Amino acid sequence: MKQVKLGLLGFGTVGGGTATILKNTLSEIERRLGGDVSIQIIHIAVRDLNRKRAVEVDGAIMTDQPLDVVNNPDVDMVVELMGGTTLAKTCIETAIENGKSVVTANKALIAEHGNELFELAAQKGVSIAYEAAVAGGIPIIKALREGLAGNQIEWVAGIINGTGNYILTEMKKPGADFAKVLKTAQELGYAEADPTFDVEGIDAAHKLTILASIAFGIELQFERVYTEGISQITAEDIRFADQLGYEIKHLGIANRAEDGFSLRVHPTLVPKSVLLAQVNGVMNAVMVNGDHVGPTMYYGPGAGAGPTASAVVADIIDLIRAEHQPQADRVPGLGFALNQLESAPVLPISEINSAYYLRCFAKDNAGVLAELSATLAEHHINIELLHQEPSSQNPDDATVVIITNQVKESDVDQAIQTLEAMDAIDGKIMRIRVGALD
Amino acid sequence: MKQVKLGLLGFGTVGGGTATILKNTLSEIERRLGGDVSIQIIHIAVRDLNRKRAVEVDGAIMTDQPLDVVNNPDVDMVVELMGGTTLAKTCIETAIENGKSVVTANKALIAEHGNELFELAAQKGVSIAYEAAVAGGIPIIKALREGLAGNQIEWVAGIINGTGNYILTEMKKPGADFAKVLKTAQELGYAEADPTFDVEGIDAAHKLTILASIAFGIELQFERVYTEGISQITAEDIRFADQLGYEIKHLGIANRAEDGFSLRVHPTLVPKSVLLAQVNGVMNAVMVNGDHVGPTMYYGPGAGAGPTASAVVADIIDLIRAEHQPQADRVPGLGFALNQLESAPVLPISEINSAYYLRCFAKDNAGVLAELSATLAEHHINIELLHQEPSSQNPDDATVVIITNQVKESDVDQAIQTLEAMDAIDGKIMRIRVGALD
Repeated sequence: MKQVKLGLLGFGTVGGGTATILKNTLSEIERRLGGDVSIQIIHIAVRDLNRKRAVEVDGAIMTDQPLDVVNNPDVDMVVELMGGTTLAKTCIETAIENGKSVVTANKALIAEHGNELFELAAQKGVSIAYEAAVAGGIPIIKALREGLAGNQIEWVAGIINGTGNYILTEMKKPGADFAKVLKTAQELGYAEADPTFDVEGIDAAHKLTILASIAFGIELQFERVYTEGISQITAEDIRFADQLGYEIKHLGIANRAEDGFSLRVHPTLVPKSVLLAQVNGVMNAVMVNGDHVGPTMYYGPGAGAGPTASAVVADIIDLIRAEHQPQADRVPGLGFALNQLESAPVLPISEINSAYYLRCFAKDNAGVLAELSATLAEHHINIELLHQEPSSQNPDDATVVIITNQVKESDVDQAIQTLEAMDAIDGKIMRIRVGALD
Repeated sequence: MKQVKLGLLGFGTVGGGTATILKNTLSEIERRLGGDVSIQIIHIAVRDLNRKRAVEVDGAIMTDQPLDVVNNPDVDMVVELMGGTTLAKTCIETAIENGKSVVTANKALIAEHGNELFELAAQKGVSIAYEAAVAGGIPIIKALREGLAGNQIEWVAGIINGTGNYILTEMKKPGADFAKVLKTAQELGYAEADPTFDVEGIDAAHKLTILASIAFGIELQFERVYTEGISQITAEDIRFADQLGYEIKHLGIANRAEDGFSLRVHPTLVPKSVLLAQVNGVMNAVMVNGDHVGPTMYYGPGAGAGPTASAVVADIIDLIRAEHQPQADRVPGLGFALNQLESAPVLPISEINSAYYLRCFAKDNAGVLAELSATLAEHHINIELLHQEPSSQNPDDATVVIITNQVKESDVDQAIQTLEAMDAIDGKIMRIRVGALD
């Protein structure tokens, strides 16, 4: 019988979930692997040896020294679930140096240091698998790297942060606003005490970095991702969008343009007819458009013990199967051979083309709409949809909501500057990008 | 440079699509494979050598003798896109005997003869890949066999026939009925002149057979799939379902029950809150529920040159990568090792548990509803939802629509027999299964 001995770094939610699967579902996994394989956790590093664990394990295999696990010669494969980008990085590097393949759920580490880690793994002839790092239980890494390998990928657009999607979904309910819903999300454990990481899009930017890299075959470029959070979105914007036929979703979008790639995380109006617009609550979903396959979508739970551990265990099984495969034949870490990664530039956000939702407060007199549309026309912007109603803020104002045609972001920004300087416009103009997703 | 020489059997829509991808997207595929691989079509069998082809190929590599292709010693891998279960079977068997791996899009052949073909392939140390056989461009085979390998799969439910889904979607429009919409579908090329294969669920049953086998690790059992078409569904049923919060979808469902498995294709009421209910037109989608991951869904185009060829080419790439992998380490044809397939029985349809939509015409007098519910109660059936309105057929009747609780199908059938014998009930009762999908 073939024995696979795992060393775990971290034994919190996902670590416990992984141990649970390897215990409860082992017979099914062995049926997949041919019945002559056993998978065993033989060493676990935790921060606090005295903490009570939800899943029972033999205390003798626990340590608070993660390097002891990666240096343990009996450990065949390392599963990194500790998080962070410093000690976790050292541990993974040491594991690779020791000739051990690694499974990780660490999106920040892959997004920020993946280029060097995959390089090191290639040198040492081992693999780093990270299905759990993006969209939890959804096998989106596998779909992009393998399932759609016959395509040039045109774009990827995903709801890849459950907290943000939960907040935007709940904000549709009468009387809800961002602050109230965030508080509920925190009480339910969907949002952290400091919600910045989720709400401002940093977590989504980590995941988008990875998706863009494996979609297009480019280096991981976390620092080039444009990131905008959802804290400025009002319940009124959500209602206006609804009236015009859209849902507002916090999307990570990567697309191929003529002169480079665009990588961005921002609130986006999605037409209700697009299935992605119907993904609600904490669920995740990623749309992928390939030149031959067309639009596809992958949906499921993006977090939690079971879903994330499901992805971790799938990676473990993949690595077991790949052990005796020649290195050159294995699916490369980023889906494309390291020496084949493209160097096309990531475009600044001002260079992207998009339709825009613009919402402003205008003095409610006859000439304003004419002036507004004339100003937009001067900047080569057409109005596709327009909605006007009395302002809920100021009885003298009207709220005007516009959906523009596809234009360059810098043109819209200039038009907004001009409009905000007009006497007829009160205060700032709200601008949200519209994603056609077709 | 490594050269992979393909032999194609069939050069229609999907064959042309495959050639197009291998021409237009080859540089991207080579970037994935490391840049030192070339993939070339060197032999093509067609039925009619004189037919004009949409995609240009060298006439010298064409033959009308498919066995010449599978017996060509220069051909490394056979791609079977000819369809049918007789000559195609012989060709694939011969290819396997000759030590060649096979990629096929042939759902009927896999569903009806897969057990013997996978056995033969295992003996000869080659692989049969068939991602294109189910749900076209959606990499659902890969998701089930690999991406969700850490789960015991509880159930699979999918819209796996685009023609049927197009018809049901169009039937929601005012004034539409089955016959009219079918005619339009035929004019648009979405339905065949003889639509039986799609509309009566045979095509879906082939695909469901495959999904069930790789979900549960059981033998392919096409002959055990219960199959019911959509030709009896009326526009009025679709409207009633809508009013009660459901869409009617033609689903393939495979689920694990206490005493066996259930494999079935039939019209199903799906709650609108379930994302699968929002999949419209010719698109396909498959929901998979695993014990750890929970509900996931895979969506995309289920047919057409580009999507189907996308799956064919992904399989070709997979097989190239697996060439030097020890056979025992490869993903087995049905996802589970052949000697590990379970033999739990497939339950007869009368044994399934489901909620039901019942629609009947009742004489519009005070006591009927009481009698109806008393009869149901005698058969241990509760009414969860009830809707009554004047019959559109007969001014003296009321149409009564009921959603029941979860009950055994044989109980419902008995209750229907009793009801149909009642004086107060006019004609037959329409019965459609309700899928909770949670």
